[in-house]
Amino acid sequence: MKVKDLLIGAAYYTEYMPYERVEKDMQLMKEAGINTIRIAESTWSTWEPHDNIFDFSKLHHVLSMAEKYDLNVIIGTPTYAVPSWLIKKYPDIMAITKHGQEIYGGRQHFDLTNPTFRKYCERITRRLMEEQKKYKCVIGFQLDNETRAANAANSGTQQLFVESLKQKYPDIDEFNHEFGLDYWSNRVNSWEDFPDIRGTINGSLSAAYKKFLRDVITGFLAFLASIVREYMRPDQFITHNFDYAWDDHSVGLQPLVDQPEAAECMDIAGCDIYHESNEDFTGIEIDFGGSIARSLKNDNYLVLETACQGLTQWLPYPGQIRLQAYSHLASGADSVMYWHWHSIHNAIESYWKGILSHDLKPNREYYEIKEYAGEMNKLKKSLLHLNKKSKAAILLDQRSLTGLDEFPINTVLTYNQIFRWMHDTCYKMNLETDIVYKESNFSDYKLLFVPALYSASKETIEKLRAYVQSGGHLILGFKSCFSDEELKIYPDSQPFMMTDLVGASYSDFTYPKNTALLLKDISGNEYKAPLSKWIELLIPSDAEVWARYDNPFWKDYAAVTHKKNGTGSVTYLGCYFEEKELEMLIKKVIQEEKVNISLRKEHFPVIIKEGMSENNKKIRYIFNYSSHSEEYCHDTDNLKVLLNNNEVLPLDGNEVVRPGATLKIEPWNLLILSEI
Amino acid sequence: MKVKDLLIGAAYYTEYMPYERVEKDMQLMKEAGINTIRIAESTWSTWEPHDNIFDFSKLHHVLSMAEKYDLNVIIGTPTYAVPSWLIKKYPDIMAITKHGQEIYGGRQHFDLTNPTFRKYCERITRRLMEEQKKYKCVIGFQLDNETRAANAANSGTQQLFVESLKQKYPDIDEFNHEFGLDYWSNRVNSWEDFPDIRGTINGSLSAAYKKFLRDVITGFLAFLASIVREYMRPDQFITHNFDYAWDDHSVGLQPLVDQPEAAECMDIAGCDIYHESNEDFTGIEIDFGGSIARSLKNDNYLVLETACQGLTQWLPYPGQIRLQAYSHLASGADSVMYWHWHSIHNAIESYWKGILSHDLKPNREYYEIKEYAGEMNKLKKSLLHLNKKSKAAILLDQRSLTGLDEFPINTVLTYNQIFRWMHDTCYKMNLETDIVYKESNFSDYKLLFVPALYSASKETIEKLRAYVQSGGHLILGFKSCFSDEELKIYPDSQPFMMTDLVGASYSDFTYPKNTALLLKDISGNEYKAPLSKWIELLIPSDAEVWARYDNPFWKDYAAVTHKKNGTGSVTYLGCYFEEKELEMLIKKVIQEEKVNISLRKEHFPVIIKEGMSENNKKIRYIFNYSSHSEEYCHDTDNLKVLLNNNEVLPLDGNEVVRPGATLKIEPWNLLILSEI
Amino acid sequence: MKVKDLLIGAAYYTEYMPYERVEKDMQLMKEAGINTIRIAESTWSTWEPHDNIFDFSKLHHVLSMAEKYDLNVIIGTPTYAVPSWLIKKYPDIMAITKHGQEIYGGRQHFDLTNPTFRKYCERITRRLMEEQKKYKCVIGFQLDNETRAANAANSGTQQLFVESLKQKYPDIDEFNHEFGLDYWSNRVNSWEDFPDIRGTINGSLSAAYKKFLRDVITGFLAFLASIVREYMRPDQFITHNFDYAWDDHSVGLQPLVDQPEAAECMDIAGCDIYHESNEDFTGIEIDFGGSIARSLKNDNYLVLETACQGLTQWLPYPGQIRLQAYSHLASGADSVMYWHWHSIHNAIESYWKGILSHDLKPNREYYEIKEYAGEMNKLKKSLLHLNKKSKAAILLDQRSLTGLDEFPINTVLTYNQIFRWMHDTCYKMNLETDIVYKESNFSDYKLLFVPALYSASKETIEKLRAYVQSGGHLILGFKSCFSDEELKIYPDSQPFMMTDLVGASYSDFTYPKNTALLLKDISGNEYKAPLSKWIELLIPSDAEVWARYDNPFWKDYAAVTHKKNGTGSVTYLGCYFEEKELEMLIKKVIQEEKVNISLRKEHFPVIIKEGMSENNKKIRYIFNYSSHSEEYCHDTDNLKVLLNNNEVLPLDGNEVVRPGATLKIEPWNLLILSEI
Repeated sequence: MKVKDLLIGAAYYTEYMPYERVEKDMQLMKEAGINTIRIAESTWSTWEPHDNIFDFSKLHHVLSMAEKYDLNVIIGTPTYAVPSWLIKKYPDIMAITKHGQEIYGGRQHFDLTNPTFRKYCERITRRLMEEQKKYKCVIGFQLDNETRAANAANSGTQQLFVESLKQKYPDIDEFNHEFGLDYWSNRVNSWEDFPDIRGTINGSLSAAYKKFLRDVITGFLAFLASIVREYMRPDQFITHNFDYAWDDHSVGLQPLVDQPEAAECMDIAGCDIYHESNEDFTGIEIDFGGSIARSLKNDNYLVLETACQGLTQWLPYPGQIRLQAYSHLASGADSVMYWHWHSIHNAIESYWKGILSHDLKPNREYYEIKEYAGEMNKLKKSLLHLNKKSKAAILLDQRSLTGLDEFPINTVLTYNQIFRWMHDTCYKMNLETDIVYKESNFSDYKLLFVPALYSASKETIEKLRAYVQSGGHLILGFKSCFSDEELKIYPDSQPFMMTDLVGASYSDFTYPKNTALLLKDISGNEYKAPLSKWIELLIPSDAEVWARYDNPFWKDYAAVTHKKNGTGSVTYLGCYFEEKELEMLIKKVIQEEKVNISLRKEHFPVIIKEGMSENNKKIRYIFNYSSHSEEYCHDTDNLKVLLNNNEVLPLDGNEVVRPGATLKIEPWNLLILSEI
Repeated sequence: MKVKDLLIGAAYYTEYMPYERVEKDMQLMKEAGINTIRIAESTWSTWEPHDNIFDFSKLHHVLSMAEKYDLNVIIGTPTYAVPSWLIKKYPDIMAITKHGQEIYGGRQHFDLTNPTFRKYCERITRRLMEEQKKYKCVIGFQLDNETRAANAANSGTQQLFVESLKQKYPDIDEFNHEFGLDYWSNRVNSWEDFPDIRGTINGSLSAAYKKFLRDVITGFLAFLASIVREYMRPDQFITHNFDYAWDDHSVGLQPLVDQPEAAECMDIAGCDIYHESNEDFTGIEIDFGGSIARSLKNDNYLVLETACQGLTQWLPYPGQIRLQAYSHLASGADSVMYWHWHSIHNAIESYWKGILSHDLKPNREYYEIKEYAGEMNKLKKSLLHLNKKSKAAILLDQRSLTGLDEFPINTVLTYNQIFRWMHDTCYKMNLETDIVYKESNFSDYKLLFVPALYSASKETIEKLRAYVQSGGHLILGFKSCFSDEELKIYPDSQPFMMTDLVGASYSDFTYPKNTALLLKDISGNEYKAPLSKWIELLIPSDAEVWARYDNPFWKDYAAVTHKKNGTGSVTYLGCYFEEKELEMLIKKVIQEEKVNISLRKEHFPVIIKEGMSENNKKIRYIFNYSSHSEEYCHDTDNLKVLLNNNEVLPLDGNEVVRPGATLKIEPWNLLILSEI
Repeated sequence: MKVKDLLIGAAYYTEYMPYERVEKDMQLMKEAGINTIRIAESTWSTWEPHDNIFDFSKLHHVLSMAEKYDLNVIIGTPTYAVPSWLIKKYPDIMAITKHGQEIYGGRQHFDLTNPTFRKYCERITRRLMEEQKKYKCVIGFQLDNETRAANAANSGTQQLFVESLKQKYPDIDEFNHEFGLDYWSNRVNSWEDFPDIRGTINGSLSAAYKKFLRDVITGFLAFLASIVREYMRPDQFITHNFDYAWDDHSVGLQPLVDQPEAAECMDIAGCDIYHESNEDFTGIEIDFGGSIARSLKNDNYLVLETACQGLTQWLPYPGQIRLQAYSHLASGADSVMYWHWHSIHNAIESYWKGILSHDLKPNREYYEIKEYAGEMNKLKKSLLHLNKKSKAAILLDQRSLTGLDEFPINTVLTYNQIFRWMHDTCYKMNLETDIVYKESNFSDYKLLFVPALYSASKETIEKLRAYVQSGGHLILGFKSCFSDEELKIYPDSQPFMMTDLVGASYSDFTYPKNTALLLKDISGNEYKAPLSKWIELLIPSDAEVWARYDNPFWKDYAAVTHKKNGTGSVTYLGCYFEEKELEMLIKKVIQEEKVNISLRKEHFPVIIKEGMSENNKKIRYIFNYSSHSEEYCHDTDNLKVLLNNNEVLPLDGNEVVRPGATLKIEPWNLLILSEI
């Protein structure tokens, strides 16, 4: 399902305003071309001030005004932050974690399995759905918000976990064996003896509980969806704002939610993408975040939250807000919605700034949105519902992420870093990638990157084998195919069940001390490159050795191997090195194996992203993510210009860009070309 | 109220001695010129070994001996560390914090509002007061010790907090609105639902609780004072040792105590000043600590604790103990008292060394005190009760400090750092400053520095406006006048209600990446200086731009502005830069606005401090805080020398220092000059 | 007691295997020359799956197979990790610490004094002893595993502690005085008031509790030994794997166990030695760990655990596993046993790898063991039961270690660092050292090193005095003889009771800022060397000053002194400097005092270690701990070669190495010479 129009919008909370100004705000939005607001998700204590006493007057006021000003509304269900009276009455709702019981005040710190909590969630959700149903402006619903299971280990939750294990392992001895519980006398000889999961030192068991908590989230969202769906019109949709692993901005796959599974109850995927800005804006988070969001329903997606001003350190340079918006569209987003319309004057997120600053006056940021909204309005026939299908894909896997969490390769090398290493290298060399999962169909892709697939069932490994055997080119990262689904390490040569296709195997690995990478540059000259964090000591059988170790004691081992397998191939990366060398190796695979992917001459900070418009024309975005101007030299297709930096050209124009033509891209600006 | 004599002394605990030697210690003190001891504050378990069973024999022994050796005694009430039996009986007295309930053993970790605790405090205080009353040697009383509210969030304390909110906000909706509690569903719709404060994510509420805990301290000290006062002679005084924010030494305004308010129940202000020493001794902590102490009663103050040897890393170079003592006097102190007479042989503070080392023998440190005590005895008619009044002041504000705690500018830029940036720059350029508060009379000062007045009521802002409008020169730091008293950010152009006087406004701010400060040096040449941590993007209206940003994207904004307002002026510092540039800007204000402050040519490590003696003569101290000798070139007044390095000159001498005369100052030494 | 044969072995757990392969594993061991396995210690939950229901089938299987394959077996009692059902029934068994009650899952986190725990320990131990008694292959028993008291402060444990204090201090006032409890009102006026030890701020009390917990371990091991002994044959032994202080490998004296006391109930000392490897392998941990183990029973010892592959970062270079094995023997070990035979596929220690990798196939590491096992089999008549007696010793003291823990010199200078500074300097200059304790006979040694003997009773100090007075050469480190056994600092000149023999005293100390060490090099020229972390300001009386401070303010103090006392001498090190200078000073003592120790010309990475074989011939090992080859130039005795790098020479050969002969040592390789 897709939205009908390009959504430009923001979260809007009249409840948070220092004084009433709904109509004024909506006028300002309207003038700027903002056409959508997202409301309601975190104001349960306003809707239901006392148990079973409701007051939706603010909701009605906002919805009425939205209809007056012709704004679309996405309503969020309010369950991620609960009223204080609920916890006074039912303190058990608060999650119990390793650190004891949570204290009321924050959000997303409840035991989602608590039956009382569920009962109250259902009632407020039903009441809200009743209240809103007469409003045409409501186009869709967001379930909860960035849902979390809060590491809850309340006794009821743990009981459900044990039940799930019992189901999976009718024979308790098999359970003990699969999880290796003999270790340190951890055997559970009867289910009644199951110890408090918070104390476990068993990585497999700990990972299984994390997986269980992800399933709790999937179940909770499905529960909310089933309620919401009872009240929906056919033209309305259900979405959710999935977020990503977080450092001080989005950095990779979210470890706490099984997003593809959780998205099954939804109509359109949604996401929150936050990134650095000003000097540090690269477009990378928008790219990988967009690829993940696109993968959830294999369709366009909504950017439900992204920063306008955002955190203090993110304040964008002039032009960047606009550039960011186009970057989202180039990834397949059908919306750009900000967290949030206005900066907040109290509480905790006062310095997570919105479009308007605290003075609530139109500002530079506001006018920049107005500028691009006007442009997009002219261009949207070509830009909305961009259909993207890359020739290369990256395989992501939640169990492997958890696996490396429980059994770290090295405290400074996480799963997401390995994913980002592969993703970012591709991004910077202008090789667009899709995200796939072990359930996906790999055969659509010429090239498949597999970062640290630490946990891989035999079925998954068979799929990878089949991919190669039917002509696919696999770039398999170190630490892949190492353990099974429960993180039990395979007691056989590594990478498990892949040594024949890889043409090499290993059983020893270590950190690189006094060790460099020896590999050949494009001209075939061997040179040394830095290594860090991880090396596997590969013993090649019939693979070509593409890189070795510069250390007298490891000199007989291979570092990177490559083996042709029929028309397919496997390149195995046995160590972690720099992006420059990874880029060189990717090019080598493409060239030597004649992979049907054209290498681009442009390189970051010039980034090219493509897709097909709704009327099936190729659309090419060319971005300049830098503070200096760049040149784009057109070389192949005859395309026409839709946007030349700040100049919008007529959609029905015919001014073709000929091969060899050179176009200038201003700092933090872009071009959009279209097939004629 | 002032003490009658210059007090040179130390904390003295016979209870802590490895063997009985009171008389020997007092003989040693007497010989060295030490005339005062501070006793009793932490030995409740000795006075009252069992509930309601008392033993004051050690007290009487010490007081009798003190009378024999003619020592003054300051008695501390003993409530900051309680006997173990009290907590065995009443465990509820221990504070409950975010980390659970405190375990007995330390100090200052009680719930000060606990009625049982209060009852026992009253009884031991009354008994102690009774016991001591026959001793003439007792000159005053110290209430408790560095009192803390221990972050207590016991339910009784929280209940009192809610009561105080109810009083202030009869309308609960107004309360919710002022604190922005709609955010994340935190509304409190009836006072009974008030959640455990320990969980709050609301910065305003958290700050209000911190303020409440400061009020608890004020109330507790007043409670003790009222008891003590019942027993006092008219010639005795009440004081308290206020301390400062702490890193590994005193670093700024104490965040946990409202010192001016707490001091209201006292007669003389007292303080603890700790500072680095040897290579790192600068006199700065003595200066700002003294200025704060002086501000509490607008009078001379007592240094009740300072380090003699102190922590291991502080061991002073020969001469520094003496230099430190004079530094205190030059700030207006009427005492120099050490923590403590002897180094402790057990427990926790064995390496917080006193005057005597663990061997309890006269040592280098002891003889250095003896040396300066002898000098001061000759000079004290001129040095005691120094009357100081600076031409410049710095406005400190506890709510703003808390505000930046709750809403950090940047994790590496605290309120105290901004205060210290202004203070230290003035100190090093020999521009003496007083400390004032929002209740103070600003009009006494030519120049008023305002560091990060993040929380400012409209009344306070009006006061600042009035100061400028009546001819004051205001140097207003970034992030000032941003939020109200409850930290609710003003929804208007910043700095709030000051944009007309500043002649500029802003709504955007960020951290300086790839950005330098562009400003003019003394000769008018523009140059670049480093920036760090914080920039505001100022949009000037009618201000002069004194500094800009060297970044192509921020180039149109101002960094520092200046605007004449009648005979007054406002200089607005929109960013954080180095002391060198701040000094240049301060000079520029003084020169361009012809502020009646004479700029000194001497610069740190030569520091000049002045005041008026009791008989109304100007006294000038000239310090050399360095390991090399310095020269002081006299240029204005005809003064005479009282102390020339280690030579004391007769008070009634007439040897005038003529303008142009040059005096040498030895390393870590000083001169004292006096008006004739 | 000594083992009868050289043990080469590994921990072996069929319980942890992903599939049954006992016979296959034992065949592989047999082929490699591995002759011993260590079993059973951590599998209580397998032996006793439900309360009082036992299943020893796996034990019998392993023991039967061991007999078939002629392997020795050491059986561990299983009490360091308990079954989950035990904690479900008796949750009180879990230790309560400062952080609350432990949660079941790990190991060594019980209250060892809990009577129920003891009862169950006794039952399982008796059952296990019954089951194993028919097997001849069992050569000995290991009690528990790396036993810990878990910082338990359960109320029962605390009660026992208070009882022990009551016993020691019948007069509670004496107790208060010795511990200095008047401080901060901490007096305990009746034993019933004794507060929860977890809250104490009294370093002496905290140290006494740590000592008490070490005694709990001693008692627990003795309890287990008394049970085991009831079932033992006379040829069997009791041992225990003592471990060392730990950083990311063994780093010094274990603070949590009184090893000499705990070893009293045992027949043979055992230990776990872990060390860095590849680039960072030095042999140092093997040396000091071996010296400590040797000191426990003054006899040969067992290395019960050492890493084969070990942690990822430790993966040894080819040849290092063999070199490590010989290094253990050269220290007096009679075994080399690995943790563990196979790498583990689940749980927590999957990346603490054993001999076999996860693939369970013979690998490089396996074949390297096979290689050296074959060599040792030929040489063991000369190598087993090496009798070592060094001319120099280092005095270690647990109370002093705890003392510096409670009263840190400097957060970056621990007791073990000071010990290691002395040890490692001696090691690198090829001066072999033994470890002694305050109970030892010092008179056997020419040279005695005393690192930071912070806690020293008068009796101990008298022993040191007697050592010097009877001709011993004492190198006394800073911070020695400072406090008594309860860490009460002596109220007299420092070092206490030693100032006459030292010829100097001090009462001031600090950290060295802007201060270097001034000392004379071998040629008598004064030069500056770096100082760090600690300086004492020594006032010499009649000592020679061997080093001073380069700082104008500390220039009159001494840094290192030396004083002849009859035929003995005391060298006092008043500060911490680099190993290079320490080595120079040690040489100076030996040369000037004509100490009967021959200084070697070889230096690290060439290391020489000696001892006497069983048939009383001198055995000399010469190791090359580096990646390059080294030369060894023979200079004194006529010895013959037993091992020349990888060549084994006949034991009855007569090829003498003449003085002046030069032998090459390959990288990470060794020579072994023997008296003819």
